[in-house]
Amino acid sequence: MKPIDFRSDTITQPTPVMREAMAHAQVGDDVYMEDPTLTALEDLAAEMTGKEKALFVPSGTMGNQIAVNVFTDHGNEVILEENCHIFTYEAGGIGAISGVQSRLIPSNKGVLSVETIEKAVRGVDIHYPETALICLENTHNKAGGTVTDVPTMKAIYEFAQHKNIPVHLDGARIFNAATALGVPVSELTQYTDSVMFCLSKGLCAPVGSMLAGTEDFIDRARKVRKMLGGGIRQGGILAAAGIIALQEMTGRLEEDHRHAKVLAQGLNAMDGLSVDVDFVQTNILMCDVTDEEVDLEDLMKQAREEGVLVNAMGARRLRFVTHYYITEEDIHKTLEVFAKIMKKS
Amino acid sequence: MKPIDFRSDTITQPTPVMREAMAHAQVGDDVYMEDPTLTALEDLAAEMTGKEKALFVPSGTMGNQIAVNVFTDHGNEVILEENCHIFTYEAGGIGAISGVQSRLIPSNKGVLSVETIEKAVRGVDIHYPETALICLENTHNKAGGTVTDVPTMKAIYEFAQHKNIPVHLDGARIFNAATALGVPVSELTQYTDSVMFCLSKGLCAPVGSMLAGTEDFIDRARKVRKMLGGGIRQGGILAAAGIIALQEMTGRLEEDHRHAKVLAQGLNAMDGLSVDVDFVQTNILMCDVTDEEVDLEDLMKQAREEGVLVNAMGARRLRFVTHYYITEEDIHKTLEVFAKIMKKS
Amino acid sequence: MKPIDFRSDTITQPTPVMREAMAHAQVGDDVYMEDPTLTALEDLAAEMTGKEKALFVPSGTMGNQIAVNVFTDHGNEVILEENCHIFTYEAGGIGAISGVQSRLIPSNKGVLSVETIEKAVRGVDIHYPETALICLENTHNKAGGTVTDVPTMKAIYEFAQHKNIPVHLDGARIFNAATALGVPVSELTQYTDSVMFCLSKGLCAPVGSMLAGTEDFIDRARKVRKMLGGGIRQGGILAAAGIIALQEMTGRLEEDHRHAKVLAQGLNAMDGLSVDVDFVQTNILMCDVTDEEVDLEDLMKQAREEGVLVNAMGARRLRFVTHYYITEEDIHKTLEVFAKIMKKS
Amino acid sequence: MKPIDFRSDTITQPTPVMREAMAHAQVGDDVYMEDPTLTALEDLAAEMTGKEKALFVPSGTMGNQIAVNVFTDHGNEVILEENCHIFTYEAGGIGAISGVQSRLIPSNKGVLSVETIEKAVRGVDIHYPETALICLENTHNKAGGTVTDVPTMKAIYEFAQHKNIPVHLDGARIFNAATALGVPVSELTQYTDSVMFCLSKGLCAPVGSMLAGTEDFIDRARKVRKMLGGGIRQGGILAAAGIIALQEMTGRLEEDHRHAKVLAQGLNAMDGLSVDVDFVQTNILMCDVTDEEVDLEDLMKQAREEGVLVNAMGARRLRFVTHYYITEEDIHKTLEVFAKIMKKS
Repeated sequence: MKPIDFRSDTITQPTPVMREAMAHAQVGDDVYMEDPTLTALEDLAAEMTGKEKALFVPSGTMGNQIAVNVFTDHGNEVILEENCHIFTYEAGGIGAISGVQSRLIPSNKGVLSVETIEKAVRGVDIHYPETALICLENTHNKAGGTVTDVPTMKAIYEFAQHKNIPVHLDGARIFNAATALGVPVSELTQYTDSVMFCLSKGLCAPVGSMLAGTEDFIDRARKVRKMLGGGIRQGGILAAAGIIALQEMTGRLEEDHRHAKVLAQGLNAMDGLSVDVDFVQTNILMCDVTDEEVDLEDLMKQAREEGVLVNAMGARRLRFVTHYYITEEDIHKTLEVFAKIMKKS
Repeated sequence: MKPIDFRSDTITQPTPVMREAMAHAQVGDDVYMEDPTLTALEDLAAEMTGKEKALFVPSGTMGNQIAVNVFTDHGNEVILEENCHIFTYEAGGIGAISGVQSRLIPSNKGVLSVETIEKAVRGVDIHYPETALICLENTHNKAGGTVTDVPTMKAIYEFAQHKNIPVHLDGARIFNAATALGVPVSELTQYTDSVMFCLSKGLCAPVGSMLAGTEDFIDRARKVRKMLGGGIRQGGILAAAGIIALQEMTGRLEEDHRHAKVLAQGLNAMDGLSVDVDFVQTNILMCDVTDEEVDLEDLMKQAREEGVLVNAMGARRLRFVTHYYITEEDIHKTLEVFAKIMKKS
Repeated sequence: MKPIDFRSDTITQPTPVMREAMAHAQVGDDVYMEDPTLTALEDLAAEMTGKEKALFVPSGTMGNQIAVNVFTDHGNEVILEENCHIFTYEAGGIGAISGVQSRLIPSNKGVLSVETIEKAVRGVDIHYPETALICLENTHNKAGGTVTDVPTMKAIYEFAQHKNIPVHLDGARIFNAATALGVPVSELTQYTDSVMFCLSKGLCAPVGSMLAGTEDFIDRARKVRKMLGGGIRQGGILAAAGIIALQEMTGRLEEDHRHAKVLAQGLNAMDGLSVDVDFVQTNILMCDVTDEEVDLEDLMKQAREEGVLVNAMGARRLRFVTHYYITEEDIHKTLEVFAKIMKKS
Repeated sequence: MKPIDFRSDTITQPTPVMREAMAHAQVGDDVYMEDPTLTALEDLAAEMTGKEKALFVPSGTMGNQIAVNVFTDHGNEVILEENCHIFTYEAGGIGAISGVQSRLIPSNKGVLSVETIEKAVRGVDIHYPETALICLENTHNKAGGTVTDVPTMKAIYEFAQHKNIPVHLDGARIFNAATALGVPVSELTQYTDSVMFCLSKGLCAPVGSMLAGTEDFIDRARKVRKMLGGGIRQGGILAAAGIIALQEMTGRLEEDHRHAKVLAQGLNAMDGLSVDVDFVQTNILMCDVTDEEVDLEDLMKQAREEGVLVNAMGARRLRFVTHYYITEEDIHKTLEVFAKIMKKS
């Protein structure tokens, strides 16, 4: 029996339609810019985000690293939310590849404010690095899939423009944010200079992310991608799945969000578990194990034996991520499993 | 009518068998190391090169860049043949990513000697960077697909081991080298600490290269790959084609070499063209346009109009690369086209 | 009339004894390690800090940057107090030169705790950079010259050793810390792997700082110093002043501390000014201008016209630094000047 | 008895006049740009080189490293003569600090030609790094103090300007070059965008070099100097000696050149030694030990026992550098010593 796998939406496999598309994709050598499917995907991504141009990259990490590299020089400083993906989960790349200092600032559950950013911007002084970039993350992974709304995006962008500092959006799950807000994704991305989003994760493509921005930005990004080894040849194979991800999968994310909400309410109702239900805004939920007698490793093991996989986030917290391969039935099954485990403990 | 495309073997598209395999590949999340097809490909690559472990990377450039990064520290020096791919065609990555100085040394048509390398190794001195790596390229692209033979590989490796300097092999086309020498590829790769080779190019997979070495090397390489953004999710899609590349395509490269030889002899026989036929050892041939009245751009344009695509290498030289999609008939057609053009001029 | 210059203790000029020593210093080429005066200074610095070896560097910034470079690799993470000098005032060097991510953590007025550090140390995960270094600052400049005591240093060092993470101490003013605690400086530096301290600042040498650690550390530091361009030739000229700084100036810092205390109490007693007198532990005092009608720039200008120079630290705060060239009389004069200015406003 | 030390002109000690000037130098905090002596030195250096501004740096290496850093971005390529100081003797800094690839090109005894440079300039291609800087070295140390003349400097600079590539001159011994050519130094430096020259070496100041260029260049250089830790406080101590170096020592270099010529002729006349006398153009001479029975180490040891110190450059070559502390009598004494040693062998 296939497990119910909440560990991440990164585990989503390509759908049958995607596999069919990959099998028949027209391809070419993309280093010569002759891959028609890749080009079609890039055009579609640019259009959906309202940007001049877009670029396929093998991973969200590469998309973020390229953006930081294009917007900064070695010795600059970048403003980052203190638990953001770029700082936390990208293996130290911004230091190693781009030589920038990370100015970490706090947020309200992943949502930054102009005030906090403003305090972190450097003035001019021989001792100071230059503040060269502000990075946002929407939805915010480690904060539990929380959404930064359009007015906040707008306010931050206007402040940044006033200070002449570019804004990059780590929008790995930006379609989840747009879905939660009920707006087209371009409503959000209009308030950034560049945006990265993933075709994998909730959108189920096997491999790949998109980076979008101005034509000049993408031209420079293409060069950095080449340098990092992200330039590929017959990428149309992957792009074929990506096109379906954008056309057919972005509209169905509401279902994942509804599943997360139901799961959140159910878990929160159990003794020994606590979920901040109001902050389950998209497809991620953080569940604190408040019963101190419950051992987290043991709890995860018992769930696994019942066919339910989850990840730990720190010593007392579980993370559940809903996605295309989690059905409503799976949600109910999961609640039963956890009810049974928690009752025993 | 499809053109006869000699520009590069990178333009090869996946074969029907590869497409079929990709459509049905078993996949998983490779960041969790749960993609069975990727794992199978990595095991196969390790076995064929005689190394402990192997790692899939999106491109040959990334494979080379990772190897340089793992073996060196910032401020070290790397010994490189002066026209090698790593220095010439990788967008300056070894400086930008790994902070190393490139010690360029001359070769005999792409083949290095122990003597030349020995002179370039640094002694110990507060003013000197440390020589941390020697890179070889076999076959050598810019020199025209030339082959470094087994005794030379062995001599260089023994010298390097004596000096405690690791050796990385840019073996993008190492199967062409092995084919030309009539040895299994492991005969060559036994004399290196790490090797990168491409699944694309002559082997026709759409995307991807392999990096192989010791277990410790690959563990560190996996981390660097993550940092560069080369860690992908359901890579089994691409790996399925890679497995076929290794199983079914490595045995047929002799055909490409034979085609190149026939083409070389034919072109060399024409007035105004000159090919060093003895050095057409694999699937690449360099053809000098010796008739000074012939304009290279014009020559390429005429050929293109007749359905033959080639690349220029400098002001008076054409490069032809043979591959799976160039048939014996194509070779004869090409010779007719060039005979016609050269007669006119 | 010479102004009373509280802007920084960096403005201190060499004493007549230092000038005399410089004029007659025996010198040699230190790249050949033949400068006897430099060697004597390095031996003295090693002895005083209880380290195997020490190295002269042109500035505290270079000493800190070298330490970070020796202890880390590109892509590592460094734990830093969020307002420390290394992050705030060194022009982004740790990113640019050493490629590390800065993990900023909060403190209690510049004093870190094991608990806060422990939370910031990374576990092992393919997504994570490695925590490679912990940096302390004692006294802490931006927090107002606050002192980390010996038990805290010890506790942090023991934790770090347990985790196999080296500790570097930015001890630009470590003699001020030792003086405030009434212990020899080696009591503090025994709990670090490396320490940088300045010969300039409170100790009045014109140029230079010392970096101390194990023999292996200093050997590697010497190489990095060469790479950064900090290897100098007849450095004995500067070292002659440095020896006097260590022999004759370290014993008199108590006077500067007493002056700062008197000044703090006096300023704090004035309406519209506030100093946290308990935290004036050494030669730095932070004075908040609480009277909102007082314009900081204007206040500084009036003081300047009366011959008193101070620096602003943010919008409502003045920093006073006492040193060898501030006499007891200067303190009283300064209090009169501020009393007059604040009365008017 | 003091040895006759030909190992390098870096061993020169400050003259009595310099010591006197250092003892009485007016100083200030140069980070606040308040050191009058440093400012006077910088003005003088700018004037003599015909540049808008100049900057004091602790070493020639730092001056070169700053120039490369200001003119390039990570991932660029720099054109360098294959035996130049920047590549050979600066501990790999250009890779580590500036992340550039070193494009090494051959020269005629240290003198580059436009033709060789032109071939090394990159075109525009996604695979290529950008050629961002050309570095010259005049006089050329490792080639034996050879001089690039004014027309050659001019031709290279005009080519570089045409290509929009800046030119940096490592002019550590540019006053030797100007002396040999009989022109003011500004005749040479007018054909560069930046120039570094040393106050130490032949000019005898104990510590320091100057970097000169446009105002914008020097502003950026000042920031990089701060980042590298080369910003010092009361640098006027050193600047006082530097001013004398420029005012009183630049006029006497002809004497060193004459001494080198006499020495060269004398050594070349001995059996078993060979000096290319025509290429002894300044204060450096390379002497090949052609008698294969003579062991170089042994030869150096015998000379040392007679009070003559020289450095080896490779297995069969000695380097002699003349300077202020080598008198005419020393030259004759040295010739006697070598005559005696060579006769024995």
